[in-house]
Amino acid sequence: MEMKTFEELDRLPMEKVFKDPVHDYVHVRHKLILDLIDTKEFQRLRRIKQLGTSQYTFHGAEHSRFSHSLGVYELTRRIVDMFERNYPNEWDSEMKLVTLCAALLHDVGHGPFSHTFEKIFDTDHEKITTDIILSEETEINAVLKRVSLDFPNQVASVITKEHANPQVVQLISSQIDADRMDYLQRDAFFTGATYGAFDLSRILRVIRPYKDGIAFQYQGLHAVEDYIVSRFQMYMQVYFHPASRGMEVTLDRLLYRAKQLCQEDRLYPRFPLLDPFFNDNPTLEDYLKVDDGVLQAAIITWTESKDAYLSELSRMFIDRKPLKSVTFEKGKDEPIVDKLRGLVDQLNYDKELYTLINSSSDLPYDYKLKSKVPIQLIQADGTFVELSQASPIVKTLSGNLQGDHRLYVPKELLDDNPKNINMFQETYDEFKRYIRNQAVIWPEDDVKETQNDH
Amino acid sequence: MEMKTFEELDRLPMEKVFKDPVHDYVHVRHKLILDLIDTKEFQRLRRIKQLGTSQYTFHGAEHSRFSHSLGVYELTRRIVDMFERNYPNEWDSEMKLVTLCAALLHDVGHGPFSHTFEKIFDTDHEKITTDIILSEETEINAVLKRVSLDFPNQVASVITKEHANPQVVQLISSQIDADRMDYLQRDAFFTGATYGAFDLSRILRVIRPYKDGIAFQYQGLHAVEDYIVSRFQMYMQVYFHPASRGMEVTLDRLLYRAKQLCQEDRLYPRFPLLDPFFNDNPTLEDYLKVDDGVLQAAIITWTESKDAYLSELSRMFIDRKPLKSVTFEKGKDEPIVDKLRGLVDQLNYDKELYTLINSSSDLPYDYKLKSKVPIQLIQADGTFVELSQASPIVKTLSGNLQGDHRLYVPKELLDDNPKNINMFQETYDEFKRYIRNQAVIWPEDDVKETQNDH
Amino acid sequence: MEMKTFEELDRLPMEKVFKDPVHDYVHVRHKLILDLIDTKEFQRLRRIKQLGTSQYTFHGAEHSRFSHSLGVYELTRRIVDMFERNYPNEWDSEMKLVTLCAALLHDVGHGPFSHTFEKIFDTDHEKITTDIILSEETEINAVLKRVSLDFPNQVASVITKEHANPQVVQLISSQIDADRMDYLQRDAFFTGATYGAFDLSRILRVIRPYKDGIAFQYQGLHAVEDYIVSRFQMYMQVYFHPASRGMEVTLDRLLYRAKQLCQEDRLYPRFPLLDPFFNDNPTLEDYLKVDDGVLQAAIITWTESKDAYLSELSRMFIDRKPLKSVTFEKGKDEPIVDKLRGLVDQLNYDKELYTLINSSSDLPYDYKLKSKVPIQLIQADGTFVELSQASPIVKTLSGNLQGDHRLYVPKELLDDNPKNINMFQETYDEFKRYIRNQAVIWPEDDVKETQNDH
Amino acid sequence: MEMKTFEELDRLPMEKVFKDPVHDYVHVRHKLILDLIDTKEFQRLRRIKQLGTSQYTFHGAEHSRFSHSLGVYELTRRIVDMFERNYPNEWDSEMKLVTLCAALLHDVGHGPFSHTFEKIFDTDHEKITTDIILSEETEINAVLKRVSLDFPNQVASVITKEHANPQVVQLISSQIDADRMDYLQRDAFFTGATYGAFDLSRILRVIRPYKDGIAFQYQGLHAVEDYIVSRFQMYMQVYFHPASRGMEVTLDRLLYRAKQLCQEDRLYPRFPLLDPFFNDNPTLEDYLKVDDGVLQAAIITWTESKDAYLSELSRMFIDRKPLKSVTFEKGKDEPIVDKLRGLVDQLNYDKELYTLINSSSDLPYDYKLKSKVPIQLIQADGTFVELSQASPIVKTLSGNLQGDHRLYVPKELLDDNPKNINMFQETYDEFKRYIRNQAVIWPEDDVKETQNDH
Repeated sequence: MEMKTFEELDRLPMEKVFKDPVHDYVHVRHKLILDLIDTKEFQRLRRIKQLGTSQYTFHGAEHSRFSHSLGVYELTRRIVDMFERNYPNEWDSEMKLVTLCAALLHDVGHGPFSHTFEKIFDTDHEKITTDIILSEETEINAVLKRVSLDFPNQVASVITKEHANPQVVQLISSQIDADRMDYLQRDAFFTGATYGAFDLSRILRVIRPYKDGIAFQYQGLHAVEDYIVSRFQMYMQVYFHPASRGMEVTLDRLLYRAKQLCQEDRLYPRFPLLDPFFNDNPTLEDYLKVDDGVLQAAIITWTESKDAYLSELSRMFIDRKPLKSVTFEKGKDEPIVDKLRGLVDQLNYDKELYTLINSSSDLPYDYKLKSKVPIQLIQADGTFVELSQASPIVKTLSGNLQGDHRLYVPKELLDDNPKNINMFQETYDEFKRYIRNQAVIWPEDDVKETQNDH
Repeated sequence: MEMKTFEELDRLPMEKVFKDPVHDYVHVRHKLILDLIDTKEFQRLRRIKQLGTSQYTFHGAEHSRFSHSLGVYELTRRIVDMFERNYPNEWDSEMKLVTLCAALLHDVGHGPFSHTFEKIFDTDHEKITTDIILSEETEINAVLKRVSLDFPNQVASVITKEHANPQVVQLISSQIDADRMDYLQRDAFFTGATYGAFDLSRILRVIRPYKDGIAFQYQGLHAVEDYIVSRFQMYMQVYFHPASRGMEVTLDRLLYRAKQLCQEDRLYPRFPLLDPFFNDNPTLEDYLKVDDGVLQAAIITWTESKDAYLSELSRMFIDRKPLKSVTFEKGKDEPIVDKLRGLVDQLNYDKELYTLINSSSDLPYDYKLKSKVPIQLIQADGTFVELSQASPIVKTLSGNLQGDHRLYVPKELLDDNPKNINMFQETYDEFKRYIRNQAVIWPEDDVKETQNDH
Repeated sequence: MEMKTFEELDRLPMEKVFKDPVHDYVHVRHKLILDLIDTKEFQRLRRIKQLGTSQYTFHGAEHSRFSHSLGVYELTRRIVDMFERNYPNEWDSEMKLVTLCAALLHDVGHGPFSHTFEKIFDTDHEKITTDIILSEETEINAVLKRVSLDFPNQVASVITKEHANPQVVQLISSQIDADRMDYLQRDAFFTGATYGAFDLSRILRVIRPYKDGIAFQYQGLHAVEDYIVSRFQMYMQVYFHPASRGMEVTLDRLLYRAKQLCQEDRLYPRFPLLDPFFNDNPTLEDYLKVDDGVLQAAIITWTESKDAYLSELSRMFIDRKPLKSVTFEKGKDEPIVDKLRGLVDQLNYDKELYTLINSSSDLPYDYKLKSKVPIQLIQADGTFVELSQASPIVKTLSGNLQGDHRLYVPKELLDDNPKNINMFQETYDEFKRYIRNQAVIWPEDDVKETQNDH
Repeated sequence: MEMKTFEELDRLPMEKVFKDPVHDYVHVRHKLILDLIDTKEFQRLRRIKQLGTSQYTFHGAEHSRFSHSLGVYELTRRIVDMFERNYPNEWDSEMKLVTLCAALLHDVGHGPFSHTFEKIFDTDHEKITTDIILSEETEINAVLKRVSLDFPNQVASVITKEHANPQVVQLISSQIDADRMDYLQRDAFFTGATYGAFDLSRILRVIRPYKDGIAFQYQGLHAVEDYIVSRFQMYMQVYFHPASRGMEVTLDRLLYRAKQLCQEDRLYPRFPLLDPFFNDNPTLEDYLKVDDGVLQAAIITWTESKDAYLSELSRMFIDRKPLKSVTFEKGKDEPIVDKLRGLVDQLNYDKELYTLINSSSDLPYDYKLKSKVPIQLIQADGTFVELSQASPIVKTLSGNLQGDHRLYVPKELLDDNPKNINMFQETYDEFKRYIRNQAVIWPEDDVKETQNDH
């Protein structure tokens, strides 16, 4: 008699579902998956919002990484089930569990307001994701080891893209993977941005495995094209929104100040859960105790800080009064940007704490944009064509997702009639000379001056 | 020349919109409203989830009271604009601003996980709502006073239902008001429960003012009926869900324990933001610093408490391992419920901390269900008919929204093969005799015994 | 080596899909199904609208029986696939093809504006459906016989409910079958009536086979309840709409007149495709040449008829100027109804042609409402409970889907200021005395008179 | 006292609505509009499908020009109402009624399967639209003249783009007008093609009048961009679909044959309603009697024609067995196309009747694509920028909506194993040499031959 595989033995007698507003139902058919969802490390994702500070611009976007992770799992499951049915020769069914686990866990290492937190405290959510999977101390590791002692390593290798099977890697991480397909649909649903809608069911019909990874049937060209356009629109309209970046910049400066104070032993009140981070020696256990709520509770505490800068920045963040911005052109406007920062300082704001440059390309959303794996279409006769060769729209967009560069300064300096600057009226007038239509400009005499320099 | 009213002067030159996934856009046409939204007290609602512990059952339901409040404002605005256009004789246009402000602010006093928090700390969100509106110290009060010194009182009187105009009161608070219309649609959208959908646009077409309040045109009967059925379904399927109530019960017991310890001076670690609540003397300022994140940060802190009960209950809540329940019939099964609680104690759980009775009617969701104002339909000839007289479905539902009664006990006692009870096998077998199909039963001999008692 | 079944051999190498706005995609996996869709008898359904005269009230409801039939097939396929996966012991997989074919073909015998057409020409769409399946002359019969010589009989026996397997019969025809599930969703989608929405995906999850037919898991109670309420709302709001029935009544009278003229050899111009029907001897071939367009072309032709009645009734139908109605109470108001019809005659309209009684219960939509097979719920322990026992809402609705009774008369008689009646003013005043609020009433003295009769 | 305008006097005491699945409700506030909808010429649009033969590819696309016309009216109404509120100086409110009437009536001259019908019978729907508006004999003309004797001329001048107010003209007919906005959304809804969705509500927010016509606020750039991409996708996926064009080509050949026969006096059976068209002298009255159903009834009649060609082509159309196609490159492949047509003739099909070239650019859908009026964006400082200058996507698409060129031939010649050609095997092999991957190719020796010609 043939021995049953772990996958077969692990199947639930009756599938369990989670009601999902985006994908209708998330179907769980293995006890392994159910138990991973029930681990404390995975439950923690409920307390970390998917879109960080975008919630302050799109009030509906309050969804967590928990629901996104379930969504990525579900899309992966649908694809893998279809592969098993339609491409038994191209797809290795033994890859099923490792693919599903990697899909579910790919974001488990995220912290609160990821990008800013990582920048200030020098952490790395991808590294922490693999730590959580591999550490002997986590519940996730214990559950995964039920499959085999080596299984956690296999799952981690998908995250790090070192897994030997390119199909598995590309399903989780490529230009058009389950991760992005979920987040574009989900973020569109919760923000209300209709731009994010694309024909998911058609893409799930035309996706297919081949020797070197994942490709799409040629007749699905327009669905894939539509996905690329939706992605572009979501970046321009949602992810790069200047107000969300203003909140991020404000958070950046306040954490920077808190860390500064802590290292000078002047941070009061302290917030014990964050101490390990200020001291640059957080353990995995420390990390897993921190979430959006903890960070916000700390900031609420600091609104009463004796340090006037920290308390003001904390209030600006908590009460949603972020720094505001003007755009500038990189490689040309920096001299003016420097002048503006100097003038902010003269207007009695500490320029280190109240100004910051933010470029949309700094954003963490799409590290995969730089992926070297192109999107391949399979033609009727089995030959491949790269997407941008088949689609003029995609070719156009490929080179155009740059976003912009912005200088953030105190909100009131960009208001029409700012208060409390009468003693600095002259400096303020100078400041305003360099700005028009919310963009940095070169006033005429400055242009001349600069030209003389050359 | 006629003098302009405050409302006319306050209009924005260009309306401002908030993108909303439920109502498409929220339209703000008055600076007053914009400034209320920008107050710190209103921004705080971003940090309080609309559905409390329902998020642990329906993972999409992570939306905040902030987005709900904007939604109630928007529905009220649509209704009031329609009243102005279609019923200029029945509707007093001077009521516009007070109605919109009350709609926006009706929930501003809510705290984290409202019901449980209020029960343990003896607070009252309606009272706090009016405090926030009336207190000299709030930004909201300052904004409202721009209309007139008495305006905060007017807004507060709508909340307390004491306002002289019954139309204004009923728009904000009645069987079928802007508040409920928004939350049913919104909660349905975010949970993914299609039951909650009803024909909002038709209801907004047939709603109308009359002398004594708000009524509906008779031809809208089926739309109103559908709304009532949706409401029923949402209660049965979402609001009364046993797993959400299990999280609520768990939170209740852990806060109860923390308070107990604090009052015995044994709570360690402390969590300063909560101290005023444990000491029963929170100020409004204290209250406004507390939100979902703060409460969760405290509970994360307590997972390391030296008190074994508190640390375990805290982990149960944070890691989503709530108490589980069996139903029982009120007025009949209490003797068995008492026995079961005794047996839990013998199984080495403190029965005070590890068992609790929860009745769905205790839930805070629908205090208005008890509203004495019936829903009136206006017939072609101007006469009224009360909804349940016109609709057999509604008549049926009126008496049937009772929900159930549940005894919560440690999860493992209801598992098929609980661990660690071998030394108590006999007691556990006794425990299980009283339960079948997740409901309390009277085993045969007990029935006899009890009968003999009579 | 095991021999392959017809079903296995018939599978398409690559499934074919039809894009459907309601179910996203219709998936065809057997050549048999594809070839049935391509038969001329099935293609004819494109030319027969699903909702008959409802399109004149809900302008979006222009969908055909073709798209509905594909939808019923698709829902059946989803259910049967789930049965194969989850209930291999309860469901006989050899029933698959016969079930799918019956689902696809169940409406193939429908003619234009079914109910009225059948009434005037004494045809029966169910009988014709089985004729089409069984006749040696149809393409459908030829395709079906590829399975086996007896296969057409098997398919026909599902339509006539004589098939031995009750599960197959109930999937196609019962209180909650694939037919109704499709038409409620589809009609709701195309009319725009949100009432028709119910949680289809949940119902597809809880439906299951058992020995005597089809049942639903108890936990799906609320989804089934919601379906019943949706059905009720669709009947009350869409299917029973008085304006649609007015068009039906007008069509009835015009066909009645045309038949009358034809039999008296006075019908001019003739319309050859309809001749066999006027002569009461249509063959199946004749029947298959008639569709909505043919009937409308005939009526357009008759707008130029020399018979003034026929030409006027034809214009009323083609230009959408139907008879209008007042409601009356059956068993009580008939004496008044008779008087009204007499008065219409005195007002110079032929009462035979310009008045008609229509009861919503006459409508053909829901002959299955009278189905004797109740909806069964299966509880955790395997026992059954009948739906209306478990649901007070359903119990209420069961006895309430009666609709109403209406007397249709010329539109202008119900207008506020009818033209061209000045010479009959007295008669018209008499007519109006019996009507109030669009309902028949007993004027006071008439009440007395009648009372005296007793 | 000020005199009321016709518009003010004409307002309905209570607005009337039509439930629309795409726009929720169509709101009618003027008796004029209601009476236009009730005219027989407008009601006729119920019997003409919006998408012609696309219904044979997308079975949901069975909606009529009636529902589209209501939709265009509704979008125009929303825009005009917004203009009145927000741009009282830029928009002349006296243009309201003429704009609404033109929106409602812009398609009233369409006939069945417009493009093919017009080609064979040499009619012009735009000309007929203005005829209907201006003719003394139509109900529409009578209703319009209630406004003023000149009003029909004003409405007609909007259709012909001669109206003096460019805003009015562009609202009805420009790159992004109410007509297209409705049909893209509506066709997407009914076909099920998600590509067609764009952010209509945002476009309705950013559209605005200016001196020379209609423009869009710059901040709406991405919404307009998205509209352009949706339009592109709908053309590529829906409007240019080869199967729909195959039905159109088949219809073209059958009407061509019928006309040929009629002119040779050999058409039997005749179909009286079409006679005026075959005789090239239809009156407006004749035209208004013809619709989809009439044309199909004629074709059903002709399936029994004694002319074998006509009866076969009629069956091919009615039973949906259209000619099929291969693509070819214009300006290069014509020699091969000619050879192929010759071979079809040798294979015993009349090449005149069984082959036809169809270019997607011939399609009538988008004559406006060639509109000379570009889409203008208004920047914050009031200056304009043309859309394609601001959007690389649009620039790319502007030059790429070409579609393709196709040669249609009998379906069986493109099947894998055609029947009944064994006596012509050699010719058929020759035929197949010129086709690969459903495209015309130059076999190697032919390439040489042709090259030698040069």
